[in-house]
Amino acid sequence: MEPEKAVILLSGGIDSATTAAIAIEKGFALHALTFSYGQRHGIEIRSALSLVRFFRIKDHKIIDIPAGVFRSALTDASRAVPKNRLPGINEIPDTYVPARNILFLSYALAYAESIAAYHLFIGATAVDYSGYPDCRQEFFKAFQAMANIGTKTGVDGGGFFIETPLINMAKSQIIQKGASLRVDYSLTHSCYDPDPDGLACGACDSCLIRKKGFLEAGIPDPTKYQSGK
Amino acid sequence: MEPEKAVILLSGGIDSATTAAIAIEKGFALHALTFSYGQRHGIEIRSALSLVRFFRIKDHKIIDIPAGVFRSALTDASRAVPKNRLPGINEIPDTYVPARNILFLSYALAYAESIAAYHLFIGATAVDYSGYPDCRQEFFKAFQAMANIGTKTGVDGGGFFIETPLINMAKSQIIQKGASLRVDYSLTHSCYDPDPDGLACGACDSCLIRKKGFLEAGIPDPTKYQSGK
Repeated sequence: MEPEKAVILLSGGIDSATTAAIAIEKGFALHALTFSYGQRHGIEIRSALSLVRFFRIKDHKIIDIPAGVFRSALTDASRAVPKNRLPGINEIPDTYVPARNILFLSYALAYAESIAAYHLFIGATAVDYSGYPDCRQEFFKAFQAMANIGTKTGVDGGGFFIETPLINMAKSQIIQKGASLRVDYSLTHSCYDPDPDGLACGACDSCLIRKKGFLEAGIPDPTKYQSGK
Repeated sequence: MEPEKAVILLSGGIDSATTAAIAIEKGFALHALTFSYGQRHGIEIRSALSLVRFFRIKDHKIIDIPAGVFRSALTDASRAVPKNRLPGINEIPDTYVPARNILFLSYALAYAESIAAYHLFIGATAVDYSGYPDCRQEFFKAFQAMANIGTKTGVDGGGFFIETPLINMAKSQIIQKGASLRVDYSLTHSCYDPDPDGLACGACDSCLIRKKGFLEAGIPDPTKYQSGK
């Protein structure tokens, strides 16, 4: 019997890598989508490619989102990435990208229905990113409901499932889970503001959350940070 | 005072042309998105460009959806476009494209939030296309609800409005409304299967609905059909 297909959003970070490992452990054959959207950390696409090899994913598409669709501190070189602060609870960070997960999940949904996959995996977590409206459980529920009203599969068939296995996990728990599944986190990338060699800044929101995660997990951080960070 | 911005999905057909005229009549400054997704009727993109000039829309983006994301009779040259039949009520036509309006509206939403536009216009009608799950009022309601849960504007601000002014109009009523607003329908395109010169086949679902619409509206059809059709 063919394994059941699933579509996964693979960004190249810790969360999507761990989600891929969980989906594979559940027995799904993965079809991965990675988005290039003018993010400063384009280097994460290289990490996504490394993870595709690591997990032996046979179907991987890199999808370009045209410049100018998204405008935020993550895509606008003239806006500074916030440094040396962890975002507060319920505060929407400057690095919020308008409707990003909505657009990414919509692509995943269109592709899933085209290839008859019914499970969509996304490595969102509401714990460390509570400020992003599109990382909350209630958003994923609303997306799934909308998807099952607006598609043939939802109307005629069994419907789609938005799978968010990390949603209630802290970064340290995610890292412990991934380590237990032998994920090679040295292949992953988190920094919003890497230097030209791809070394992490060690000070942006994403680096701070990553460092704290490895520390709390009691697992050595394999990340190469810029010297002295 | 600057006019309020709106984002409109402009395909180049009768419905989106009429929707543009209605939105302009309401006083919105339009920002238009047109999608190129390997549809057989790529000529509709030329119609969209003509409509952009006709309506003097200053901001227009053509967005490529990579080949292989959507699979349907509309994008797959090896599958025949159904001819000489009007689709039945509640039947999902072969020309259904997986999650198309979901993906298009998600792009519109991301762009709208980026430019601080809160109204998204789409020329969907549930009357002549009752078979498409993503052309129904309940789908647009679910999309709007999801958008207002999953975005900063929805959580912090006044939210987004999915505007479907044609939703309860038959094609003949749409054409009468557009004619009253002086829309030049000779610029629009409907055919799913035009010949290499761009002439409409006169027999696909979309041509049949268009012909019937002009006939019932009592307005001459300016379409150039292939000879003898």
